[in-house]
Amino acid sequence: MSGVRSFFAGTDPCWLTPATKQPVLRAEVSVDSADPLADTVRAELDLLRQAAGAADAAPDGVREILLCTLDRLGRTPVGRDLADAVHAAVPRAGLGAEGFVVVRRGERLVIAAGAGRGLLYGWYHLLRQAAPLAATTGADHTEAHRPACAVRMVNQWDNMAVHPVMGSVERGYAGRSFFYRDGRVVADLSRVRDYARLLASVGINALSVNNVNVHATETRLLTDHLPDLARIADVLREHGITTYLSVSYAAPIELGGLDTADPREQRVARWWAEAVERVYSAIPDLGGFVVKADSENRPGPFTYGADHADGANLLARALRPHGGTVYWRCFVYDCHQDWRDRSTDRARAAYDHFVPLDGRFDDNVVLQVKYGPLDFQVREAVSPLIGALRHTRVALELQITQEYTGQQRHICYLGPLWTEILGFDTTGAGGPTIGDIASGRAGRPTGGVVAVSNVGDDANWTGHKLAQANLFAYGRLAWDPLASPDEVLAEWARATFAVDAATLAELTALMSGSLRTYEKYTAPLGVGFMVTPHTHYGPSVNGYEYSPWGTYHFADRDGVGVDRTVASGSGYTAQYPEPLASRYEDPASCPDELLLFFHHVPYSHVLRSGRTVIQHIYDTHFDGCDEVEDLVRRWSAIADRFDAATRRNVDERLAEQLRCAREWRDQVNTYFFRMSGVPDAEGRTIHR
Amino acid sequence: MSGVRSFFAGTDPCWLTPATKQPVLRAEVSVDSADPLADTVRAELDLLRQAAGAADAAPDGVREILLCTLDRLGRTPVGRDLADAVHAAVPRAGLGAEGFVVVRRGERLVIAAGAGRGLLYGWYHLLRQAAPLAATTGADHTEAHRPACAVRMVNQWDNMAVHPVMGSVERGYAGRSFFYRDGRVVADLSRVRDYARLLASVGINALSVNNVNVHATETRLLTDHLPDLARIADVLREHGITTYLSVSYAAPIELGGLDTADPREQRVARWWAEAVERVYSAIPDLGGFVVKADSENRPGPFTYGADHADGANLLARALRPHGGTVYWRCFVYDCHQDWRDRSTDRARAAYDHFVPLDGRFDDNVVLQVKYGPLDFQVREAVSPLIGALRHTRVALELQITQEYTGQQRHICYLGPLWTEILGFDTTGAGGPTIGDIASGRAGRPTGGVVAVSNVGDDANWTGHKLAQANLFAYGRLAWDPLASPDEVLAEWARATFAVDAATLAELTALMSGSLRTYEKYTAPLGVGFMVTPHTHYGPSVNGYEYSPWGTYHFADRDGVGVDRTVASGSGYTAQYPEPLASRYEDPASCPDELLLFFHHVPYSHVLRSGRTVIQHIYDTHFDGCDEVEDLVRRWSAIADRFDAATRRNVDERLAEQLRCAREWRDQVNTYFFRMSGVPDAEGRTIHR
Repeated sequence: MSGVRSFFAGTDPCWLTPATKQPVLRAEVSVDSADPLADTVRAELDLLRQAAGAADAAPDGVREILLCTLDRLGRTPVGRDLADAVHAAVPRAGLGAEGFVVVRRGERLVIAAGAGRGLLYGWYHLLRQAAPLAATTGADHTEAHRPACAVRMVNQWDNMAVHPVMGSVERGYAGRSFFYRDGRVVADLSRVRDYARLLASVGINALSVNNVNVHATETRLLTDHLPDLARIADVLREHGITTYLSVSYAAPIELGGLDTADPREQRVARWWAEAVERVYSAIPDLGGFVVKADSENRPGPFTYGADHADGANLLARALRPHGGTVYWRCFVYDCHQDWRDRSTDRARAAYDHFVPLDGRFDDNVVLQVKYGPLDFQVREAVSPLIGALRHTRVALELQITQEYTGQQRHICYLGPLWTEILGFDTTGAGGPTIGDIASGRAGRPTGGVVAVSNVGDDANWTGHKLAQANLFAYGRLAWDPLASPDEVLAEWARATFAVDAATLAELTALMSGSLRTYEKYTAPLGVGFMVTPHTHYGPSVNGYEYSPWGTYHFADRDGVGVDRTVASGSGYTAQYPEPLASRYEDPASCPDELLLFFHHVPYSHVLRSGRTVIQHIYDTHFDGCDEVEDLVRRWSAIADRFDAATRRNVDERLAEQLRCAREWRDQVNTYFFRMSGVPDAEGRTIHR
Repeated sequence: MSGVRSFFAGTDPCWLTPATKQPVLRAEVSVDSADPLADTVRAELDLLRQAAGAADAAPDGVREILLCTLDRLGRTPVGRDLADAVHAAVPRAGLGAEGFVVVRRGERLVIAAGAGRGLLYGWYHLLRQAAPLAATTGADHTEAHRPACAVRMVNQWDNMAVHPVMGSVERGYAGRSFFYRDGRVVADLSRVRDYARLLASVGINALSVNNVNVHATETRLLTDHLPDLARIADVLREHGITTYLSVSYAAPIELGGLDTADPREQRVARWWAEAVERVYSAIPDLGGFVVKADSENRPGPFTYGADHADGANLLARALRPHGGTVYWRCFVYDCHQDWRDRSTDRARAAYDHFVPLDGRFDDNVVLQVKYGPLDFQVREAVSPLIGALRHTRVALELQITQEYTGQQRHICYLGPLWTEILGFDTTGAGGPTIGDIASGRAGRPTGGVVAVSNVGDDANWTGHKLAQANLFAYGRLAWDPLASPDEVLAEWARATFAVDAATLAELTALMSGSLRTYEKYTAPLGVGFMVTPHTHYGPSVNGYEYSPWGTYHFADRDGVGVDRTVASGSGYTAQYPEPLASRYEDPASCPDELLLFFHHVPYSHVLRSGRTVIQHIYDTHFDGCDEVEDLVRRWSAIADRFDAATRRNVDERLAEQLRCAREWRDQVNTYFFRMSGVPDAEGRTIHR
């Protein structure tokens, strides 16, 4: 632990704000552990105290808080009873390196962990739950916590050199990168440290620090910029976070001067072994690599007639001696597709590429699979690949940054989406769920969960103040996939805003349903991708209709939707096991909300709601927009209870959300009215 | 005349290639005039001789060529008879500063001009027409030439500093700017000089040297970069070309530190007077300014509640003491339009803004009006503004760069388009034509013609070798709006390629109809703008359908087209005088090729051809694509007679043209088939 430390100097401390930590600060807190991370906890405590100033009152609840590792419990004056209670609280399976227990007896609270990371997570649990845990005369109680998923990773899509099209952070909507500037790692890593604290505070234990699209400058993180990468890793390590690096598959050519990156060539393997050796001598505890290969024009093993098992194992074998892992992304599809060719279906691609390779990957390879077969849509089927891989470690990939969900200009709380995905029954007949697979409960090899970050150098980190909730919720759901997204949201709100309970309730109520509101005013019934090409913000119904990127809705004067059935379409439904496959295959049993993802139906098709598809389109678009108007009204009613920066930020973003929602409503309704000629049953305004 | 001169070192000499100039080089050529431009002619002759090496044969036609100004004719040993013939050839109105006569008697040829520019144009006329004028034993003959339009300007859209979106040359498809690099004027202006020779050789006498979108760096051409601007002007002057500068209307704020650019403020007028004074002290013969104001987010007088007469006159009054002129662009429209609002019609905008101001502009203001009311489409109505302005100088604005016509990847010879525009009868009842107005023959004040350049630092100047014809044709048609575009094309081909007559005939035959081929496979019946947003290359039928830029086709399941009638639409037709207005107002009398520009009609509407609109769409798209296939075949049959660079370039571009034409055909046909449900009568393949 070294260097000057600040408490979010100049930036928003988010849910770590001292304003909501008084119940902890009023108590006497001690830390007892020899683990290096205990120093971090002590330092964090000091910083928080400095930032908060003198406690504002005498404790009205817990008076003494002890954070310790179990090995110190006996040597700490907590009393036999309390020590016994702590030991009794430890689950039979133990706490592992990251678990902890919380025991309160009267005015005393003990948080005990098996090791340093658990201590750190216990500390942040205490901060997040400051009020319920430490305030007033709470009842005695006991909790035990252990993360469900062993790896809980965040991917930065930060570019070292500003990309001419993608900018400083690819799909970033919160300013520039605070990791890099002008093609280099920044000298002052204090913002990176603050970010590490935010991540650790919600249980994130792994971070890949550069964009998966590894361009020329970033490739050299493996070489010239390695000392700078080590500086980043030093900061992250102090917060229990393992560093991962995104690498270019073509690095042996780009850096090594070889004329090939063929995975079956000895000199390629040798180059990687040496490169990895160098990296580990600088960062002995590097987690490993993240790789986007043969994907959206990135280099990969296909160039050499090799497959992705060859490619991934090549890197895995270089990493193995050092204990490293390769996260190999499965976002592999033909991005030069011909829209005329109905036999190609982008949704099929990942499964078709990777299922035949199941069993051929080394055990330090993790296949990183996006939750849906397309690309982070607000509604799409859950990827059949995740359930299909039985002999390969799999990581679920989520997206915190709101690429397709309003780009942090729209309120769109993603917790419910992730909960739905994590709870998805991959067989339709009793599991396992995606969450079971990610957590290892399914008994299959796993790589945990990964998600793309939503932060940048904006003062509030996420562009939209309320989008902080998504970063928070990702960490909490990765820790516990069974957690209620509404409870996570409530925890975030309570930790973030020092406002009264009624205001918190209203804020969380208006955020809770925002995902479904967003779905209503955008692409209907799971058809997806009616966004402006490239930017992916705002409506363009035909934006991808004739695109080589391969996402179509096939609307004509009679109907709309993508026929992915075996009977008459692309056959994608057969990628699911029974009974799911049959359920999706038949429009009568296919869930309405995915109807147009799986089927091309006439506008007159009647949904379970009793409404036709065309009337459903009109209704949801009017309703979605009305709900945004309602969001504006409800926020206005409570806005004055928040600080000025939050008020200004949310006001401004809500105005844009309303404008954009109206644009979505009107473009989608007009498009389908012009196509179908069917008037709205309720006679609302649809522009001709 | 100073400095080392080269003959197109390293770049394509285009139609000035020595390969086709032998009939001139074989003769003895003398130049007699005291005009400084005579030095240019002498130097050009020397350069050409050096480049060509020794003449390849004895003269087989003309043996002596004299270029002189009329004042030297008596002192030159041409003989009394020839001198008399020259004097007799001078038209009653004289030759002016730019005219010349050509008199051939047996083996002697005299080109005589009134002044230096005429001499220069006579020289280049000789080069362009080398074979017919000087080869073999031609009959005695006499020609007199004088440009129809007094100002024949080209606009560079070059940026000094590479623009993050628009690049080095806005709408440039031939590489980077050769005027600017890294935010500065280039040190070595030899390429600018070569360009000046190309321009002079087709009669261009004015050049604005920077993009009309004047960004921060370019604004400082008025100040810091003025010495560099003067260097450019020095080069252009030696080739008879007057320099113009694009300026930002907000320069008093951006450069002068004022807090306003209000045209009615004395301090603003004073700032401009002083700025202009500085510019003229560096470039005493500057032509003046080109201004894009209140257009596509550029600053302008609207900001101050002033109008465009106030704004233009502000600059005109600063320029007046120095004899300068302001070219004020009329491309003023609402680029934040709401597609829902059917009362706004972008086509109306220029007329609505400027006609009420007619008579209020100073006589050193020229209003520069694009040929159509939208934006350089391959087919749109001719702007009614040009005919409507009676008391204001008007310049016709054309576009040589193929922004909407294939971006120099498609063969699209624009001569026929410009001829059609120049020949357009603005009243529909006996003129004047656009050409009459531009040339002054209409008796109205005029500012000539202007066109956006198509050159960049590609070795062949224009990206597509055959696009050189467009630069050539623009100059020739600006000189003589009544010239036949096919004859101009033939002149270009003969001067450019040293190939046999049959090959030339085949080349020009395949280029001659390329504009109508392009029209066939792109947007149908004048509806325009079905292009990819921003780039404007390739099809996107709905690309601008819901756009704030305001160009829509309003296709629905029943019909397509823009209702611009008085009876039921935007009322745009009333901007034309009778009988044109009535002709456009009624679909029965509206020309078919503009039907969807003026009317929204059902797909079943029967055209004069007897075909329905929908069948016309299918037919023209299949035909247009077939014609491109034919282009490929015809080019392949003659390609081996051309040099390797031309062959490679045209082969490669034709392959892309064919790919793109097929994409246009299929997207447009599929779009309208999905909309209308009407099958192709001939049963050709239309993808569902």
